[in-house]
Amino acid sequence: MRIAIYDDGKLGLVQDGMVHDVSAALAVLPQGDKPWLASPGDLLIRHLDALKPAITAALPGSAAKPVAEARFLSPVQHPSKIIGVPVNYHEHVVEAESDVATFSDRFRGSIEQQGFFLKAVSALVGPGEGITLRFPDRRNDHEMELGVVIGRTASNIGVDEALSVIAGYAIALDMVVRGPEDRSLRKSGDSYAVLGPWLVTADEVADPQALDFFLNVNGEARQASNTGRMIMSIAEQIAYASRFYTLHPGDIIMTGTCEGVGPVVPGDTIACGITGIADMTVAIHPAYADKRVLK
Amino acid sequence: MRIAIYDDGKLGLVQDGMVHDVSAALAVLPQGDKPWLASPGDLLIRHLDALKPAITAALPGSAAKPVAEARFLSPVQHPSKIIGVPVNYHEHVVEAESDVATFSDRFRGSIEQQGFFLKAVSALVGPGEGITLRFPDRRNDHEMELGVVIGRTASNIGVDEALSVIAGYAIALDMVVRGPEDRSLRKSGDSYAVLGPWLVTADEVADPQALDFFLNVNGEARQASNTGRMIMSIAEQIAYASRFYTLHPGDIIMTGTCEGVGPVVPGDTIACGITGIADMTVAIHPAYADKRVLK
Repeated sequence: MRIAIYDDGKLGLVQDGMVHDVSAALAVLPQGDKPWLASPGDLLIRHLDALKPAITAALPGSAAKPVAEARFLSPVQHPSKIIGVPVNYHEHVVEAESDVATFSDRFRGSIEQQGFFLKAVSALVGPGEGITLRFPDRRNDHEMELGVVIGRTASNIGVDEALSVIAGYAIALDMVVRGPEDRSLRKSGDSYAVLGPWLVTADEVADPQALDFFLNVNGEARQASNTGRMIMSIAEQIAYASRFYTLHPGDIIMTGTCEGVGPVVPGDTIACGITGIADMTVAIHPAYADKRVLK
Repeated sequence: MRIAIYDDGKLGLVQDGMVHDVSAALAVLPQGDKPWLASPGDLLIRHLDALKPAITAALPGSAAKPVAEARFLSPVQHPSKIIGVPVNYHEHVVEAESDVATFSDRFRGSIEQQGFFLKAVSALVGPGEGITLRFPDRRNDHEMELGVVIGRTASNIGVDEALSVIAGYAIALDMVVRGPEDRSLRKSGDSYAVLGPWLVTADEVADPQALDFFLNVNGEARQASNTGRMIMSIAEQIAYASRFYTLHPGDIIMTGTCEGVGPVVPGDTIACGITGIADMTVAIHPAYADKRVLK
């Protein structure tokens, strides 16, 4: 099942190039009785098992439009955390080590030595929203990744059971401002975490470690690899993360980028895709990046 | 006004050593019409201006009990991010530089060189919940800090207007596992972000840069300083953060710790306080830290 949130917040089912409005299925989501209290995790992902049959029931006769005409938001709206995995493809490690001035020598060593990092939840957008560069005078890079969406509550679990916690997959762009500061700052600007265009549920992906992916900028090939080339596998990532903190439904793991990361500037267009998941395009907005907001 | 969330999620007003149940005031909070969509920020903090008169109205005749008998949760439940400020007291910089083996040489330089870091939202608890150490075999340190809770939406704002975005203040414990990994991993274990015991609204704090604070462990003095000794002021922190990302109502800034950070072990009790804000005690649970959860 390919589940989207699009336009003004409709729930969509994507089939054969069309997105069907199955928002009626949202009626199965429970009403929180104390909405001011924390309930870790994404409401939709937490109730995905109940939502799936409701989506199927809502499909007949639903309004539909071509995928190309929809504005896709992030299929996860309330993660408790967005987790990044550094240096997870050999060739990216080589390119980073060969240019310490750009990639910063604070951040070297194995994944276990560096540890995972966080991106701010407030950075999350869908491809239809596009990316606004926070510091257009600094180098802003695309990092193309497989996004894993957690579907269960998991803490201190083993590698052998780790794949069972996955709700689904999506394309993830781990955007970053290069520089010396902590990764969790430089990777957390508004719109620097793109997830989309939709969630492909885990049952539709036979082997998440065998997916080709690519990223182009303005038609120029930049990144291309296969998830089989990860250093730390997805199951190992989930088990490792679950030792440090509890994973909640909706938590997102950006599983690391391959070689070919490079800069984007306002006006650019990113086109990217993962075989069996989706393709998507994302605009780098020409908007005024240091706009003051106070309200 | 001293606003608390306590026991099973009651809204409390703290006065003269008593916490009054003013949960009736929560009726003024709007019902979200699309609860599956992101609405950055904490519901209660976002509507604090409407909530304050409702709290005043709910006070007469409300049930009350002594503060010592209440279990305080975090007064903010849905921050979009928890922001940490490193090396913000000179004497803490000196202690960290003198013991690189413990504090890790990845993380040196000025605040602007290091940048702020994130703690996972899923790490947030109140003092009544206590702290469970994630890796009791590693060194786990207390870091006592003034917590600033953001009350408005702010991006790219100036230092001169920064204090106007503050909703209030609370005690913050920025707990950390020492080691080489990224700060945003080591500081994000469940319960490693303690905020409480209540929110003191900004109008009650004449000068947030002139507050004495202390932290003891099992009665032994560990940390004591004054917020006037910060290297980067609170207003400067807010302006700096707002250049990297939008601040939303409920976002928490842990404004940095002073010298005297040190280890805690299961069974310890932290007692800490900030003049004009509150005192609180927090238990380090003897619980089994690597408990497996999968549901």
